[in-house]
This record gives sequence, C-alpha cells and structure tokens, in this order.
Amino acid sequence: MEKFQAKSSNFRQIIKESFEKQTFLSLIGAKLTKVSPGEIEIEVEDNKKLYQQDGFFHAGVTSTLADVSMGYAALSLASDNSRVLTTEFKINLLSPAVGDKLIARSKVVKFGKILKICKSSVFSKSKEEKLCAISTGTMIISLGDN
Amino acid sequence: MEKFQAKSSNFRQIIKESFEKQTFLSLIGAKLTKVSPGEIEIEVEDNKKLYQQDGFFHAGVTSTLADVSMGYAALSLASDNSRVLTTEFKINLLSPAVGDKLIARSKVVKFGKILKICKSSVFSKSKEEKLCAISTGTMIISLGDN
Amino acid sequence: MEKFQAKSSNFRQIIKESFEKQTFLSLIGAKLTKVSPGEIEIEVEDNKKLYQQDGFFHAGVTSTLADVSMGYAALSLASDNSRVLTTEFKINLLSPAVGDKLIARSKVVKFGKILKICKSSVFSKSKEEKLCAISTGTMIISLGDN
Amino acid sequence: MEKFQAKSSNFRQIIKESFEKQTFLSLIGAKLTKVSPGEIEIEVEDNKKLYQQDGFFHAGVTSTLADVSMGYAALSLASDNSRVLTTEFKINLLSPAVGDKLIARSKVVKFGKILKICKSSVFSKSKEEKLCAISTGTMIISLGDN
Repeated sequence: MEKFQAKSSNFRQIIKESFEKQTFLSLIGAKLTKVSPGEIEIEVEDNKKLYQQDGFFHAGVTSTLADVSMGYAALSLASDNSRVLTTEFKINLLSPAVGDKLIARSKVVKFGKILKICKSSVFSKSKEEKLCAISTGTMIISLGDN
Repeated sequence: MEKFQAKSSNFRQIIKESFEKQTFLSLIGAKLTKVSPGEIEIEVEDNKKLYQQDGFFHAGVTSTLADVSMGYAALSLASDNSRVLTTEFKINLLSPAVGDKLIARSKVVKFGKILKICKSSVFSKSKEEKLCAISTGTMIISLGDN
Repeated sequence: MEKFQAKSSNFRQIIKESFEKQTFLSLIGAKLTKVSPGEIEIEVEDNKKLYQQDGFFHAGVTSTLADVSMGYAALSLASDNSRVLTTEFKINLLSPAVGDKLIARSKVVKFGKILKICKSSVFSKSKEEKLCAISTGTMIISLGDN
Repeated sequence: MEKFQAKSSNFRQIIKESFEKQTFLSLIGAKLTKVSPGEIEIEVEDNKKLYQQDGFFHAGVTSTLADVSMGYAALSLASDNSRVLTTEFKINLLSPAVGDKLIARSKVVKFGKILKICKSSVFSKSKEEKLCAISTGTMIISLGDN
C-alpha cells in the first residue's frame, strides 16, 4: 500500500467541518473516529432505528459508512478548498452487520490526477470485530468555489 | 427484458409487511409506491435530514433506495416464507440527487435458482424526472423459519 | 434513455481504426458489427480457443466484449482526436456463455463532462439470443496528441 | 485477513488440471505461478498480441487474470469434485498495464457456505512492480458430476 502525505495542513479541520454539514450522518449517528492522510475511520453505535427486517444494521447504513469514509480518505490528500464526490462504489456484504457498533475503515489505493480510487472494510463489533463488508469506490475531487 | 410471474399470491402483502419492519426505512421516510412481479418502486420525499455536505440527497440514501427496491423485486418472485438478502451491489452516481423526491425503480434481470440479479435506476424529481444513479446487484433468497 | 448525437462526423472511421489497432481483439476474433452515436455492438464467433474449463466462452472474453463496446460507445460521442480509457467496470455473469456467437451491445447512459457511464448486455446466440451478462462501466475521454 | 486451510489434499493438482483445460488461458499465455490455500497467483508475459490501441495490456487480459485467480483462490478451499463459477466481479483500472509481465494475486476474503468473496490485485512488472488494477468478485462452488 502506498504511503501518502497530506497536501493541506488543515485537512483534519476541513474534513471535520464537512462531516458536520452532512445532516444524514447526524441522523444515523455516525462519528468520525480517525483522520489520517489517506485513511479514515467512521463508526455508528447500535441503534434500533438503523435496522433492516431481521434486526441487522441496514445495508444502506453499511454502504453509507463505506462511501463516506472512502470520500474523506480521498479528501484528506487534496489541497484546500477542494470538494469530493463519489462517482461509483461497489459493496460486497459478507456477513450480517450486527453488534454494538459498526466501523468502516477506508484507505486511498490510488490518488490519480482526476480519479481517486479507495477501498473500505466495514466491521461489526461486540466483543470482537468481524468483517461484514468490503467496498471499492471512485472519488472525484474538484476545486470548490466557497 | 424477461416477463415474470409471481409464485406467491401474497407477495404484495409479504413485501409490505417486511418493508414495515425495516426501521431504517421509516427513519428516512421511504415509501413503497409500486409492487409488481419482478418490479418495485420506492421513493423518499425531500427532507433536510437526508443531505450530504452540499445539500443533495446523500449517496447513502440513494444506495438504500436502490438496494431495498432490488431486494423486494427479487422477493416478489419467491415462494411464501422466503427471505431476501443482498450479497452485493454497485452503484454509479450520475448527477446530483436534488429535488422534491427521489424515486428508485428496480427490476429482476435474472431469477436464477440461487442468485437473483437485479438492476435499479434512481431518479430525482421536481417538475421532471432526472436519472441520478444506476445500480446492479445480486440478491439471495432463502426459506425463512418464521 | 437519452438520445445522443455525435460531435464528430468521423466517429465511425475513428472507432474502426482504433478497433483495428487492438491486437487483442484480433487475437480473439472480435468484430465491430454496429456503430451508432452512443451505441456499439461487437461480436465473436464460437472458437474453441476462447473457452474456460467447461467449454463455455471464458468470462474474460465476455468481459472484453463488454469493456470494449462500452469504451467505443463513449468514444462515439467525443470530439475528434479523443482517446478513451476504461476506469472501472462491473460485470454480472447470468448464464453460461455458450453458442454460435457472443454479442455485446453497449450504450452510453450519461455522457458527463469528465466521466462517461455506460452499460452493456452480452448475449450468447445459437438459434435464439440469450442474455448471459450485464455490465456497467465508467469511461474517461481525453484529448490525444496524435 | 482470515487464515484458510485446504479441505482437499489434492487442491494443487485439481487447480492445475482445471487451469490446463481453459483454452483461453493457453491462448493468452497465462501461467499459474502460485497455489496456496485461499491464495493464487497468475501471470502473463508481455506479448504484442495482448494489447489495446495504445500498446498496453488490454483491460480484457487484466480482467481475465483477476477473474481466474479469484476463481481458483475459491476452488483451493473447496472439497474434491467441486466446480467454480464466477458470478460477478468489478475491476478498477488504476494505471496503464505496461511492462515485461502482468501478475494477478488473489485471495479469498470470505468463504461462505454458498458464496466465496475474493479480492485481486494486478501488477505490471518491469524492474519494479506497479499496482495497475484492483478487483473484487463473487464465486460460487458447486459439486461437479465428473
């Protein structure tokens, strides 16, 4: 895995502020638990409002964590005033997402000029962590106006 | 596109009841707006709690609609007492999901013995509909105990 | 589905020449059978050199047809002197690819400023056509030097 | 990453024989260079017959290596008389595949009862290795008759 360096000295603050603007992340109770150059961790605690029909975390929640953490992994390597958008991702759901919390850990695999390819692993955790999903995605960074 | 027939005479009721058990769908305000053999439509109304950082519907919401509608498209063709699980899906986000509502329309492409492959188109709608995402996914149907 | 218009009056010739430069397409015997704005069809005839272990067309052949036809679907809408590259694709293999020929039909779904999202259906054909794979992919067009 | 054990004492021989039955792998000159429980490596040497229009290894070749190595990674953990089929894979192409050889390394991520989820990294190599593609896929194992 490539070792990345941040271009912006503010990347942690930029990501924190962007994260807080995402009302949907607040709705599901997502927390940003790690921000490093090219690496992001996000988690949500168990909550009965986040379930599918069998009482597991909904695949939509799992997907959201994977997507958001891959996006910010890409943004962590961008220059100031950048914006990030997901263009595509695929997720394989490996085992039921059930436990005290759900944790997504994402990394940049390739920080290309135009496209940033990332990967994510999502774990359910009670006593131990269990891998419940893997994802790969493509992010695009553009210079924002604001 | 293949023309499908339902195996269960109860499939509409089964899907409606399963949908209502998904607390996450209630949290985001998703509504089941069409159930036909092999075809499902789900929508959510615009709601400031469902946004990403730029004020668009979050990709996690778009993904949830695609995922759920593909799952029920598969379940609509299954026998009674079946359960559906998503094993994987990929989504390409084509344009910002912004509008009065977000509508996912999904169809079964192949109802195999083990795997059910589905596709979904997600539209944002204000006056007109605009295609904002396409997805393909694999569902698995198992016989449930309850 | 959006209706597209070609920007280049030469797109058929451009694609034909690019196709002929692909030595791998010659190796597998692929033929360009339809070129329209935003739509491409490619096929290969049955050939014992293209099999996997059970005597079906290899998934690598199916994938090649999907990939190439999506790429040229994108290129058919680009300006002269453009080059096309695939950045990602996903393929679901629905049924064994066995028959007299394999035909891929691809269309542009969204011709964005940077990214061109396409979809492909691959059919095996003996007397009748049978859908054996669906794919979605992202192409990128850049202005070439030559 | 989970540590896997082979169920069959013959898995190396089974995979070698299956590999040799794949005429398409012979056509592209693919070689099986490593077989371990849950891990496979395959490579092809540079060959002008395997190119796309710019003189790189064709994405169809890269995809074939990823697909085949993921399939055999799954098969390496199966019982005797098993057959493997790819149901879906996605590949992100990160950089031009150009060099003296192309090497795919794949691992099983989850060996489920029905589905086996694998991942692959494909490297181009001249003096050094360079990651040129990542892939994830779903394989299905069935008991064969022969």
